[in-house]
Amino acid sequence: MEPLVGVIMGSTSDWDTMKHTCDVLEECNIPYEKKVVSAHRTPDYMFEYAEKAKGRGLKVIVAGAGGAAHLPGMVASKTTLPVIGVPVQSRTLNGLDSLLSIVQMPGGVPVATVAIGKAGATNAGLLAAEILGTHNEQVSQLLEERRELIRQRVMESSEELTVK
Amino acid sequence: MEPLVGVIMGSTSDWDTMKHTCDVLEECNIPYEKKVVSAHRTPDYMFEYAEKAKGRGLKVIVAGAGGAAHLPGMVASKTTLPVIGVPVQSRTLNGLDSLLSIVQMPGGVPVATVAIGKAGATNAGLLAAEILGTHNEQVSQLLEERRELIRQRVMESSEELTVK
Amino acid sequence: MEPLVGVIMGSTSDWDTMKHTCDVLEECNIPYEKKVVSAHRTPDYMFEYAEKAKGRGLKVIVAGAGGAAHLPGMVASKTTLPVIGVPVQSRTLNGLDSLLSIVQMPGGVPVATVAIGKAGATNAGLLAAEILGTHNEQVSQLLEERRELIRQRVMESSEELTVK
Amino acid sequence: MEPLVGVIMGSTSDWDTMKHTCDVLEECNIPYEKKVVSAHRTPDYMFEYAEKAKGRGLKVIVAGAGGAAHLPGMVASKTTLPVIGVPVQSRTLNGLDSLLSIVQMPGGVPVATVAIGKAGATNAGLLAAEILGTHNEQVSQLLEERRELIRQRVMESSEELTVK
Amino acid sequence: MEPLVGVIMGSTSDWDTMKHTCDVLEECNIPYEKKVVSAHRTPDYMFEYAEKAKGRGLKVIVAGAGGAAHLPGMVASKTTLPVIGVPVQSRTLNGLDSLLSIVQMPGGVPVATVAIGKAGATNAGLLAAEILGTHNEQVSQLLEERRELIRQRVMESSEELTVK
Amino acid sequence: MEPLVGVIMGSTSDWDTMKHTCDVLEECNIPYEKKVVSAHRTPDYMFEYAEKAKGRGLKVIVAGAGGAAHLPGMVASKTTLPVIGVPVQSRTLNGLDSLLSIVQMPGGVPVATVAIGKAGATNAGLLAAEILGTHNEQVSQLLEERRELIRQRVMESSEELTVK
Amino acid sequence: MEPLVGVIMGSTSDWDTMKHTCDVLEECNIPYEKKVVSAHRTPDYMFEYAEKAKGRGLKVIVAGAGGAAHLPGMVASKTTLPVIGVPVQSRTLNGLDSLLSIVQMPGGVPVATVAIGKAGATNAGLLAAEILGTHNEQVSQLLEERRELIRQRVMESSEELTVK
Amino acid sequence: MEPLVGVIMGSTSDWDTMKHTCDVLEECNIPYEKKVVSAHRTPDYMFEYAEKAKGRGLKVIVAGAGGAAHLPGMVASKTTLPVIGVPVQSRTLNGLDSLLSIVQMPGGVPVATVAIGKAGATNAGLLAAEILGTHNEQVSQLLEERRELIRQRVMESSEELTVK
Repeated sequence: MEPLVGVIMGSTSDWDTMKHTCDVLEECNIPYEKKVVSAHRTPDYMFEYAEKAKGRGLKVIVAGAGGAAHLPGMVASKTTLPVIGVPVQSRTLNGLDSLLSIVQMPGGVPVATVAIGKAGATNAGLLAAEILGTHNEQVSQLLEERRELIRQRVMESSEELTVK
Repeated sequence: MEPLVGVIMGSTSDWDTMKHTCDVLEECNIPYEKKVVSAHRTPDYMFEYAEKAKGRGLKVIVAGAGGAAHLPGMVASKTTLPVIGVPVQSRTLNGLDSLLSIVQMPGGVPVATVAIGKAGATNAGLLAAEILGTHNEQVSQLLEERRELIRQRVMESSEELTVK
Repeated sequence: MEPLVGVIMGSTSDWDTMKHTCDVLEECNIPYEKKVVSAHRTPDYMFEYAEKAKGRGLKVIVAGAGGAAHLPGMVASKTTLPVIGVPVQSRTLNGLDSLLSIVQMPGGVPVATVAIGKAGATNAGLLAAEILGTHNEQVSQLLEERRELIRQRVMESSEELTVK
Repeated sequence: MEPLVGVIMGSTSDWDTMKHTCDVLEECNIPYEKKVVSAHRTPDYMFEYAEKAKGRGLKVIVAGAGGAAHLPGMVASKTTLPVIGVPVQSRTLNGLDSLLSIVQMPGGVPVATVAIGKAGATNAGLLAAEILGTHNEQVSQLLEERRELIRQRVMESSEELTVK
Repeated sequence: MEPLVGVIMGSTSDWDTMKHTCDVLEECNIPYEKKVVSAHRTPDYMFEYAEKAKGRGLKVIVAGAGGAAHLPGMVASKTTLPVIGVPVQSRTLNGLDSLLSIVQMPGGVPVATVAIGKAGATNAGLLAAEILGTHNEQVSQLLEERRELIRQRVMESSEELTVK
Repeated sequence: MEPLVGVIMGSTSDWDTMKHTCDVLEECNIPYEKKVVSAHRTPDYMFEYAEKAKGRGLKVIVAGAGGAAHLPGMVASKTTLPVIGVPVQSRTLNGLDSLLSIVQMPGGVPVATVAIGKAGATNAGLLAAEILGTHNEQVSQLLEERRELIRQRVMESSEELTVK
Repeated sequence: MEPLVGVIMGSTSDWDTMKHTCDVLEECNIPYEKKVVSAHRTPDYMFEYAEKAKGRGLKVIVAGAGGAAHLPGMVASKTTLPVIGVPVQSRTLNGLDSLLSIVQMPGGVPVATVAIGKAGATNAGLLAAEILGTHNEQVSQLLEERRELIRQRVMESSEELTVK
Repeated sequence: MEPLVGVIMGSTSDWDTMKHTCDVLEECNIPYEKKVVSAHRTPDYMFEYAEKAKGRGLKVIVAGAGGAAHLPGMVASKTTLPVIGVPVQSRTLNGLDSLLSIVQMPGGVPVATVAIGKAGATNAGLLAAEILGTHNEQVSQLLEERRELIRQRVMESSEELTVK
């Protein structure tokens, strides 16, 4: 099936974070592709990727990057598809640099930013699903069920505390 | 026409920021509604609003809040529609508190966070349009034209520098 | 005995922090209950819990959460019982996000915030005891004795330095 | 009537902030006293004030201070009454120094910390009322009514947006 | 004379900062050009500009930008000319976001970052001159003289204090 | 010999940091005493210690503390001896809270603040020695020799690089 | 009378801050000199100043600087006199850069750092007086009286609140 | 061959970071020297080194330092050669102190600042090469080839993801 979501990341070292995005997309049966696309090391390929994304049928792009994280914003500058930015936790500043580099975009070119690290990557997958779900009842239904499942698990976890 | 986007904010004092979201939606001919919904002062109404949003035909919710900004995340906890969070600039910490309160959501409940203040509010409108544009060619076209217009304006503005 | 203090936390992973609150309450012979209540994953249960707390005889609620920590503030929005917020240390930003999300509440809905992590959880238990102690001489007396005990321990610990 | 709440502040320049605490206490008909007590400039008086507070019938102390804000923590070290700390916005670091100096107390001596500046001062008054309200039905009732009033005001304010 | 330095900025609103770079270059008799080149609004033009810079005889590029400041890093990704990045002071976070977005580049693509705002823009001009000065004795001499002049002015300014 | 410097710390856990102060004092043959004095857990003893310090012949007090580090500032409020504050590295915020709590003292009561952690503790010992050295030629001479020794060690360490 | 304290600053623009140091020294009848000495613009003069300070009879040096504030630390590297560093409030980062540049000195070369801005400058004067006071009973006495005076003023200021 | 680049660092402990600068210079066949030069522990040698650098034929100086990192700025104050500053990751504040101490230079004395830690050290070497490359076609060519090589490696790394 043709991919609806493109999951890209600046380096293979970002995979430990970005696989959580892919896990969610698989869980929701959403076809996706995953690629290493580096803003600074493969700038032309990045532009080509962003430019062709809409024509290839992609509906959402998820881009993860750390430090001076320019990938999400630059991809967003080359497409009007929704772009979700995942700030990967950086070694020195814990991802605060990644977060600010991604979220503080100037008016005109939005990036939908999520939390730093694994939680953010998971939510990037869910946000992509929610966007598709606005016009796909099946995905929308799956998301509702996932929420209900999580709700139940939390309710049950209170029991675990009792025996502690 | 029935609204497709719900623009909500914690207080009327957030209007100066959030009107930029509404300006963009009008520019893109996207029907929307705007309301004051406070997480802390009208919690039940907030839940009701979020719960009924999908049924009422809303496709996207944009929520602006400042300080301990719980509105976007709590609305997101009650719907699987995409929720866009706008960190309103706070008086004491310049919106860093608003930003972290909105963006650092736990895995499971995403909020699409944009920049602090006016630029973020503008981009919230554009992001909502991009989401609708994934299934609405007219909106998608408008966004492409807007980008082209802005591109031209920037190209021309270089001229202004010459005479300085 | 009916619980006077409700100790709630967003996830079982917060227990390592929040058990220090429970330890203090046991030390002070204050009946309490402990539960997992998640703002984002069990929002309705959270509201129900907060709404019924006063009627069930609870006098104080202690709520621990990390990251975009909305639990204390949202519980506070649904009750006029004193709510104590414990910022759990987050993985990426060391709990600065938790702290700001909890403490920067808007005027109208207070949360009594304590330090990030274990020290804060201990102090949440003591603060709950102090609140009860305003109308319970026995608890008040226990707190005075605890302080005296700690004072003596510190005075003695100077001796340990001498042999170093 | 004998004061139940002591509102103290490090300097008369803190009054612009701390008057919001007093406004709330008056609104709730809670007798209080207000004094300038400086941790660094009147240390002995501060200790005397804290030591005698319980004996004089005070139930809660609200202490506001800025910068290296030691007043709330040091008062807390000399009493087992609940102490509420208000971080006053500082000139250079916007109150982040005040906040951290007040909230990061070591285990053993709690300070109930509220938001930086005016919102925090308002909430300090409400928190004091909530603490008294745990054993005073009249205050508790007043707080419920205040919440309801605020709720209605927010609901009505949505109307204002319509005409903007 | 053909320009040796290209001074670019994301928007005409950056001119108030970036003119200080141009002032220094004029002072040093270094031919330069100034243009508005926006990473997010004119991405293709930015790439074209960077790609052709070396061939057109430019030796150094100075790029100023604020917020999620991607211009210096993206230009650097498309040229091996030295790129100097000037963090323009942003409205909400005082330029801390600009600074981190510019300086925290990954290994492989350097950006020579200077201070936030006017001082940084001045120093960007001087750094460009120093780089040219490594192979241009005249520029090098001018820089030495400028230093000496400034040294003398500071020595004299002590006198001003005496009469205060 | 009667101690000239009092080295105090909030808890025995601060010894790992504060022993570096004592090491320097021994190296300089300056008689000192070391004690655990806690601002929050032994407030009266702290005041007594500070009040009697001058009369007992102490010339300088070095106080180390972490988190909401009130010890140095409160000791300074009770004596006009020079007080040196050492910010001990805290668990959650890396000592930024300790630093701001110590250094941001209001006008009127100075604390001579040094770096966070071990480097700061070493420098606290040296600063105490420098203060005594203003009126003690022997200590002053020792400090000069120590500097010279360190200078030589650094000069020699360049050799080590050569073989790397 | 020969100066005992040297008050230096990086630029005449620092005088608005540093005059508060001089005010205190005059108040305490301590002879001092004031000069503009810039680490970056008059490095040789700075070294000469620091090197000759002890021989000229100076007992303490107070150095104020902002931004990448290297003056206090570099002066300290050239003398074993106590050096007090005053972080001048910077335009972009509110003096946080000045503070960290001054206080985070490596082990071996201490700088006695005070608060950012005016309060710090006042305290630099007082700290210099305290250091001289360790061997000058008259200065020590003056400092005690100043404290008492301030104490009385604070006690009286509580009255002002009553009429508010 | 006479060195064109001087790589200096405040201490041998900085070697783990700064060796990445040297690795790049060797890769580009650029003759360099490496030395320990400490701003605070060998100030005179630092000045001598900076003063003689240009005369000895050096074209660029790379200076790495951590904490209150004064080395790059002070070297820059004594030469008009381009000085590149590498913020070494500090123990307590993760290099934020190093970064601000290096980058926030006043107008008049530039330091070309790169990222904190290893990535910055690598880029310092590349930036030095780029500066030399402005007048050395061979180095310029090597840099272009290095970029192309890295580009290819990234393109290939996408394959690795496929099998994950």
